[in-house]
Amino acid sequence: MKKHNYSAGPCILPQEVFEKASQAVLNFNNSGLSILEISHRSKDFVAVMEEARTLALELLGLENKGYQALFLQGGASMEFLRIPFNLLKENGKASYLDSGTWASGAIKEAKAFGETVVVASSKEENYNHIPKNFEIPTDADYFHCTSNNTIFGTQIKSLPETNVPVVCDMSSDIFSRQLDFSKFDLIYAGAQKNMGPAGVTLVVVKEELLGKTGRAIPSILDYEKHIKAESMYNTPPVFAVYTSLLTMQWLKNLGGISAIEKINNTKAELLYAEIDRNPLFKGSASIEDRSNMNATFLLNDASHAETFDKMWKEAGISGLPGHRSVGGYRASMYNALPLESVQVLVDVMKELEVTIS
Amino acid sequence: MKKHNYSAGPCILPQEVFEKASQAVLNFNNSGLSILEISHRSKDFVAVMEEARTLALELLGLENKGYQALFLQGGASMEFLRIPFNLLKENGKASYLDSGTWASGAIKEAKAFGETVVVASSKEENYNHIPKNFEIPTDADYFHCTSNNTIFGTQIKSLPETNVPVVCDMSSDIFSRQLDFSKFDLIYAGAQKNMGPAGVTLVVVKEELLGKTGRAIPSILDYEKHIKAESMYNTPPVFAVYTSLLTMQWLKNLGGISAIEKINNTKAELLYAEIDRNPLFKGSASIEDRSNMNATFLLNDASHAETFDKMWKEAGISGLPGHRSVGGYRASMYNALPLESVQVLVDVMKELEVTIS
Repeated sequence: MKKHNYSAGPCILPQEVFEKASQAVLNFNNSGLSILEISHRSKDFVAVMEEARTLALELLGLENKGYQALFLQGGASMEFLRIPFNLLKENGKASYLDSGTWASGAIKEAKAFGETVVVASSKEENYNHIPKNFEIPTDADYFHCTSNNTIFGTQIKSLPETNVPVVCDMSSDIFSRQLDFSKFDLIYAGAQKNMGPAGVTLVVVKEELLGKTGRAIPSILDYEKHIKAESMYNTPPVFAVYTSLLTMQWLKNLGGISAIEKINNTKAELLYAEIDRNPLFKGSASIEDRSNMNATFLLNDASHAETFDKMWKEAGISGLPGHRSVGGYRASMYNALPLESVQVLVDVMKELEVTIS
Repeated sequence: MKKHNYSAGPCILPQEVFEKASQAVLNFNNSGLSILEISHRSKDFVAVMEEARTLALELLGLENKGYQALFLQGGASMEFLRIPFNLLKENGKASYLDSGTWASGAIKEAKAFGETVVVASSKEENYNHIPKNFEIPTDADYFHCTSNNTIFGTQIKSLPETNVPVVCDMSSDIFSRQLDFSKFDLIYAGAQKNMGPAGVTLVVVKEELLGKTGRAIPSILDYEKHIKAESMYNTPPVFAVYTSLLTMQWLKNLGGISAIEKINNTKAELLYAEIDRNPLFKGSASIEDRSNMNATFLLNDASHAETFDKMWKEAGISGLPGHRSVGGYRASMYNALPLESVQVLVDVMKELEVTIS
C-alpha cells in the first residue's frame, strides 16, 4: 500500500533522493567505493561540498551578496549556542522572540551569555499564535526569531522591520517559500525537514557580521574557522551533506523555491479548507499565523479519535498524531509530500463525517 | 577490478554493512519507509538507538559497570570542548599527553578553560613516538590521551598507572584491540574509522564522574543532559547511528574485539615485516610504538615514488599517500580491511624491489 508520511521530522524526502542516496552507499559516482568509505578530502567529496554550499546560496538568492553557507553538525540546538558565542558582544545585548518550544530553547542558551531581552512571548496561550507589535531594542546585537513552529503549527508571515541584524531558525520551513532572504543576517536550519536527513545543519551567514564580539570562541563553535576551512574544519557528515545536495538538486530541477511554494500553498489550502469546513474538526493555531508546513488540528469531540485514527492508518497515513504539548493531530506537509497524500487525508476527514452522521 | 581501500578515514566498512545500509535507505525494516524519513521517536528507531548504546558497552565489556554510551554529533573535535566543560573544575587542573595533531587540538581547547598541564610531548620529533616516563599531577581533574595517532602511525601500547580519571580519544582504534576498558573513565571516538560513517561520535562515560565541576554547562554540551535523554536530547544523526549499529553487529558476529584483534595483528605483522625486510622502504614511527591501524612508511629513495605510485594504483589500491605533515605512505588497516588487501600491497612492494634491481 502507498504510504503517506506526515512525520514532523525526520520526514519524507523525494523518492528519487532515496534512490540516488541508496545507490551511492553501494557505489558512489561509479568509483566502485561507497560514499561512506571515501575520504572527505577526496576530489569527489570536495566537489559535493562545494556544490552544496553554492546551491544553498543560489536557492536562497544569496550568491555574491557577502554570505557564506556552512554544513555543520549538532542540529539547530548546537546553533542555539554558536549564535551567542559568535554574535553577542561582551556586555552586549541579545533580543529574542519567544514563539515556541525551540525559540524558548534558544533563549535559554543565550541567557547564559549576557543580557537577553525577550521582546514578546505567546507562551501563556500555549504558543497558539505569533506575537506581534513588539519592539526590538535598537542597541541589540541581533534579533532572533523562529520562522516556523513545528510543534504549534504557526509561521511568521511578515518579518518585523528593524535595523538590528536578524537571525532566524528556519529548520522547519527552509526552502519552502519565497522570502527576501537578504533581510536576514544569519539563517540556520537542521536538515531533517526540507533539506535532507538528520545529522547536518545548514548555516547561512553574512560574513561581515562575524569577528566582532571580543569573545574567545572555542574552535569548533567559531563560524569564521568553519568558513576558512570551507566547511571542513573537521570531518563533515559526508552522507548527510551528499543527501542534502541531492534534495537541493531536486528542488532546483523543480523550479526552485518559487515553484515549490505554489505546490505548498495548494496543499495547505486544501487541508485548511477541510479543517474549517468539516464540523468535526477545528484548527489549533490562530488562523492568520497558520503554518503551511505543519497544520495542527483537533477533533471537536475527542470520542471520535478511535474511529478517525483507525481510518487514517488504514489509508496508509503515518506520523499524524500531534505533539504531546498540543495534542490532536499535526499534518506536516514538507516539500516532498505529494498533493496526493493531502487529498488522501482530506478524503478520510470527509469519510469520518459521513461515518459519524 | 577489486578495490583495496586504505583511506585513513572515512574508511572502509564491511561490505555487508554497505548492503544493509543501502537497503534501509529504500525500505527500513520492511516498513515501506526509508530510514531517512522516519521519526527518531518512532518505535523502530528508538530500538536502534537502545541496541547501539547497549552493544557499544557490551563490545567494550563495560555493561553494568556504571558507564553510559552516547551517540553524539560534532566529531572528536566537539568532545575536545565537551570534556573540559564537563570534567575540568572551576580553578581545577587538566593534564594532557601531547602525542600528535589531534592531542594538540584537544589541549588547545582545554587551555581556554583553566590550568592545563602537558605532561609530555613528542612534537619536537614530529610525533614519531609516544612519550613515556612522564608524571601525571595527582591533583589533576583528569588525564587525557590519544590512543592512536592516525597521522603519525603511533599507538599507545601500555597506559600509565594513575589514580586520576583517564580520558581517551580512541577515534582511530576503537573496537580494534582488547584493553581493560574499565581503566578508562571516558572514552570517545569519531565513528568514521572502525565504527561507522562520518557524522556520529561515540562517548562512553562513567556516570559518577559527571556533575562535579561547578560550571554552568550549555545544554547541548552537557553529558548529563544527553544521558537523561537517552542520547536523544535533540534529533540524533539517525542514519549514522543505524550504520554504526550494523558495524557493531558485524563485529559481534565475528567474535568481538578479541577476534578482530587477532586479524588486525596478522595484517600489521605482514605489512611491517615487509617494510623492515624490503631495502627500498623504512618505517616512519618508532618501532615500539607502531600503530596496528595506520602504518606509516617512506621510500628510502624518493625517486622511486613515481614507479611505486603507478604500481599500487594499478593493483586497485587507493588512499595510500601519507599525511602532508609526514609524507611518504600511510596504510590504514582498519577492522574492515581484509588481509587480502594487505597481501596485495606487500606483493606490490616486493614487485617494486624486483623492478628496481
